[in-house]
Amino acid sequence: MTSIEELKAKIERLEQELAVEKSKNSNAPVRGKIAQMSSEVVDSNPYSRLMALKRMGIVDNYEKIRELSVAVVGVGGVGSVTAEMLTRCGIGKLVLFDYDKVELANMNRLFFQPHQAGLSKVAAAAHTLMDINPDVEIETHNYNITTMENFNHFMERINTGSSTGGPVDLVLSCVDNFEARMAINTACNELNQIWFESGVSENAVSGHIQLIKPGETACFACAPPLVVASNIDEKTLKREGVCAASLPTTMGIVAGFLVQNTLKYLLNFGQTTHYLGYSALTDFFPTMQLKPNPTCDDSFCQERQREFAARPKPEVCDDGVPVEEEVVHEDNDWGISLVDETPANTTEENVSKPVGLAQGVSVAYDLPAPNSGSSGPTVQDTDISLEQLMAQMKKM
Amino acid sequence: MTSIEELKAKIERLEQELAVEKSKNSNAPVRGKIAQMSSEVVDSNPYSRLMALKRMGIVDNYEKIRELSVAVVGVGGVGSVTAEMLTRCGIGKLVLFDYDKVELANMNRLFFQPHQAGLSKVAAAAHTLMDINPDVEIETHNYNITTMENFNHFMERINTGSSTGGPVDLVLSCVDNFEARMAINTACNELNQIWFESGVSENAVSGHIQLIKPGETACFACAPPLVVASNIDEKTLKREGVCAASLPTTMGIVAGFLVQNTLKYLLNFGQTTHYLGYSALTDFFPTMQLKPNPTCDDSFCQERQREFAARPKPEVCDDGVPVEEEVVHEDNDWGISLVDETPANTTEENVSKPVGLAQGVSVAYDLPAPNSGSSGPTVQDTDISLEQLMAQMKKM
Repeated sequence: MTSIEELKAKIERLEQELAVEKSKNSNAPVRGKIAQMSSEVVDSNPYSRLMALKRMGIVDNYEKIRELSVAVVGVGGVGSVTAEMLTRCGIGKLVLFDYDKVELANMNRLFFQPHQAGLSKVAAAAHTLMDINPDVEIETHNYNITTMENFNHFMERINTGSSTGGPVDLVLSCVDNFEARMAINTACNELNQIWFESGVSENAVSGHIQLIKPGETACFACAPPLVVASNIDEKTLKREGVCAASLPTTMGIVAGFLVQNTLKYLLNFGQTTHYLGYSALTDFFPTMQLKPNPTCDDSFCQERQREFAARPKPEVCDDGVPVEEEVVHEDNDWGISLVDETPANTTEENVSKPVGLAQGVSVAYDLPAPNSGSSGPTVQDTDISLEQLMAQMKKM
Repeated sequence: MTSIEELKAKIERLEQELAVEKSKNSNAPVRGKIAQMSSEVVDSNPYSRLMALKRMGIVDNYEKIRELSVAVVGVGGVGSVTAEMLTRCGIGKLVLFDYDKVELANMNRLFFQPHQAGLSKVAAAAHTLMDINPDVEIETHNYNITTMENFNHFMERINTGSSTGGPVDLVLSCVDNFEARMAINTACNELNQIWFESGVSENAVSGHIQLIKPGETACFACAPPLVVASNIDEKTLKREGVCAASLPTTMGIVAGFLVQNTLKYLLNFGQTTHYLGYSALTDFFPTMQLKPNPTCDDSFCQERQREFAARPKPEVCDDGVPVEEEVVHEDNDWGISLVDETPANTTEENVSKPVGLAQGVSVAYDLPAPNSGSSGPTVQDTDISLEQLMAQMKKM
């Protein structure tokens, strides 16, 4: 018969084994918080390879990143990777917005894992991000920003959501639809908040990022975003039961461009690109600059334009770009510079021109049909047509 | 005093609790294997967004990816993300090589998490990848490919490691040093194995990918890899106790370029880019093509060149690129085409020219010093100097 001593010994073994298994499952971060970023070159320092950017002369003051707060709107294929990159870079605070749930159908993009299916994207993301870097403060909002009540709360969080209670340092739009982009645009024009727009085409093989400084560059309502044509007829995308394609490559690259330009902008190194496109089929990367539309439908955009025009021109802009670059704007009404290259596989036959765009470019995503009953603001017809705009670009 | 019954009851509770905790830690995949890729648009289908590439006219036969095997050599900042992207795309088989361990100092790049610190990179990666997609077969080798014994085994796995026992369909080099690149180059020349080289600079702000087809394009020993200058003096990189900088953005972007071009090459869509560079400071993306060096130090490269010259020229190349593109090669001895653009912040003062390169370009990583005692093959001096090469490029 089993002795009490044997049973007690067995209980002790089981309790130890249980403690090991529980520690594996624990939600406690694997490393403690780190009070100050160090440059020390040891395997246990998660910041050594980032602080090395100072020694290499790339960034003057890398540790400033801990004081910065960034809002990421949309935590899908682009937004989740964006949040992960910023977390691994040691950003001070992230404010995440999404109302969607993780599905197995999302597993063809980076970040989320099958065991998270059914969780809200913001909750699942926050859990993973805090495991990766417990030094980052993470605030989540599991709602749709385009409803009236949520929109007001969204505006309030953009304006007071930084770690010190002021406005966030940058808003990154990683949403996948027109209405959400217009909501972000409306909020940022009113709050005079600088933001990046990003997008990936529904055929998964092109994307872009665009820096929007209210009053200084075109806002989302000033002009439709342009990307290199991806050889797809928009009409084929919208049939019943048809879902958009996506690839982890394209979304990871767009997130990389977005965060790289975010780092350049916030930490003041290199040149922040105002518009960077990516066409995967030909590895084509158009860049351009767009001045705001003086007749933009968004009244706050017009107000910001008047403020910008009245500002005394500084020696350098607030993002450190010398004023010489601004002179480019004076050469033509729209301040556009476009890489002089046409994708090799773009032919007249297979490029759709939904809004009268020239060959070689198309809108990055669908615009709502005119009179579609959308309650939000819509893209305004400008005095200068897009065809005139493109003709100007071609002359350069 | 405690009765035997009480102790037994406690043992039963502990055993149940332990089973629950163990199940949470179980390696069993969260979803079962899927026998065949489906296009069905439901939230539970992890392949719906990939199969949509067929409906959108991008890829003719996406499900072919399940028959393909890819070797990833080096599972660090670029290789781990490369393996994750291919896993999420549903690649048939991955063969992973690395001899390093996960450290907290790696946490500034994507993929690995702090709780994996101390595990071998291949074991940690395989565990995560199988959780993400149990349909992918994963073979791992935890060794350094540059030792004689391991090198022979490495060659054998490249040559017979596909899921059907033949050669893998592609080798992706994601290593971080010259010796490992030369080992891969030597193996692939001998085996006539097509591969992609990739790299990220030690200051973290530039990178490149390069497709190498033995006998048809320059091999790694034919010419040193070129990337856009990153404004850093190579001498500052090699001091005692100095570690290289790295960023999750640059590494994620290079992995994205690598896998995107892998997909284009293996699934036969778009145009596979032979050399694609990335300069983060200015968002500059040089492309070029390099013909093999007829006096290459690698005898197997020379043998592959003779075989390629003797091959009857087909209507289209085996990667589906029309033969017209090949004519470009005839225009100049080296078949180089380079985007005509100079990064704005490149000045004569801050660009080092370690091997006599023209302004605006530098080697992607350090070459060993001459007579450094390396036992591996070294880069051969060519009849045409690099300065002549660059002069030719400038004329275009």
